[in-house]
Amino acid sequence: MGKRLARIVLAVEYDGRAFCGWQSQPGGGAVQDALEAAIAQLAGHQVRVHAAGRTDAGVHAAQQIVHFDCDVNRPLTAWVRGVNSFLPESVAVLWSREVEPDFHARFSATARHYRYLLLNHPVRPALLSGRVGWHHAPLDLERMQAAAACLIGTHDFSSFRAAECQAHSPVKQLTRFELRAEGRMLICDVSAGGFLHHMVRNLMGALVHIGRGAAPAEWMTELLAARDRRLAPPTFMADGLYFAGVSYPASFGIASEPTFRHHLV
Amino acid sequence: MGKRLARIVLAVEYDGRAFCGWQSQPGGGAVQDALEAAIAQLAGHQVRVHAAGRTDAGVHAAQQIVHFDCDVNRPLTAWVRGVNSFLPESVAVLWSREVEPDFHARFSATARHYRYLLLNHPVRPALLSGRVGWHHAPLDLERMQAAAACLIGTHDFSSFRAAECQAHSPVKQLTRFELRAEGRMLICDVSAGGFLHHMVRNLMGALVHIGRGAAPAEWMTELLAARDRRLAPPTFMADGLYFAGVSYPASFGIASEPTFRHHLV
Repeated sequence: MGKRLARIVLAVEYDGRAFCGWQSQPGGGAVQDALEAAIAQLAGHQVRVHAAGRTDAGVHAAQQIVHFDCDVNRPLTAWVRGVNSFLPESVAVLWSREVEPDFHARFSATARHYRYLLLNHPVRPALLSGRVGWHHAPLDLERMQAAAACLIGTHDFSSFRAAECQAHSPVKQLTRFELRAEGRMLICDVSAGGFLHHMVRNLMGALVHIGRGAAPAEWMTELLAARDRRLAPPTFMADGLYFAGVSYPASFGIASEPTFRHHLV
Repeated sequence: MGKRLARIVLAVEYDGRAFCGWQSQPGGGAVQDALEAAIAQLAGHQVRVHAAGRTDAGVHAAQQIVHFDCDVNRPLTAWVRGVNSFLPESVAVLWSREVEPDFHARFSATARHYRYLLLNHPVRPALLSGRVGWHHAPLDLERMQAAAACLIGTHDFSSFRAAECQAHSPVKQLTRFELRAEGRMLICDVSAGGFLHHMVRNLMGALVHIGRGAAPAEWMTELLAARDRRLAPPTFMADGLYFAGVSYPASFGIASEPTFRHHLV
């Protein structure tokens, strides 16, 4: 391997149904595997790609941020058009930037942003199957908004942490949990410095429980205080979860707000 | 087969990628095959389902209207929940009605409604791959709107008719062709009493040709007048085409406007 010439940042969109999650697997089949293979074709050497957030199987990305180092000089547009020509149709590079070598897609991040789309309709999704979560009975949006408001701030989120979570601490700072409805679709925007494993889906499970009237909004505060995963409702389906963007210190010059190419994703 | 008890109307949503089109095939694999099999499970006898519009492979439906006759009495909700439990995840029944025996999903229809979703972005769709059409270069919406306006009215649409079209006449009355943009997405709503084979996709091909500046808006009038398929641009991709609804005489009591469960479909 020659001298490292450049550190490149890419924004990547993908359909989580087509992959076994972000993280590289021995047999392939992960988003990382597809992306590293496509970049290697263009770079002419193997690369290791680092992502801001490692999404689970079935979780989508409207804008995942990744970086890699390469030994060759290519115009920035080549890292979009060229890499896209080697990628399967379920994943695409949206834009590319060159950054200073002290930038790291994961460790430089100051906040991650997720969106959850939830179809609240008596009939399950068909056109959007695998792309939205679903609850058949009417949900009380205001009650869910009140419950979500209890989550803002720095809390021990042990009640919403998967058993296999490898984070050092269950304490996270949630800066945003907004819910709005567009017709039968609930759109939930969640931001935090970092998330525990399954945290958004576990929080969605509790919000749906509250929204359908099985518990009052204040129950969310009790769940938080209990710090016991066994008391909280089950993990909600992955289908409607989208990694939406990452914030970095302004000095890196990387767009810090979630942006969506389409209306909702 | 016993006495016919009832004629049932269903509204059906489906993802066209999962099927080889609407119309039943000897080996199965059509939407009609899946639907007839699911209904037969509930009815306890074979049924023949008639659709308002026979969509091609890859074409979706936000609201296809179908009818069938059955020999058994089932509550209307069973034709939704029961049938859905036997259908694959890419197709779902949205609602059901009982109608008089003089109603026919295809022959009673007075208008059909289609929607075309076109992503106008430098990067191909990944999350919405197979679900939207795509053009990479900027399209001039106003120019396309002017061209679409030339299409309204009763015309000989031979220039936009597939060679395999089996319609008796190439003359159709187009009552609506509206284009609007939401961010990078172009939304095209088209209504007519009936359509020729590939007519919407052929019209989209010409509109994109005009929108990217390859011809003036008035060229649409010339194409119509020429009545020659060879002069018009190629058929546009099926990916973004949605069968959106059907109009019937008010006496049948069937909702006549396209309605969408989600924001765009």
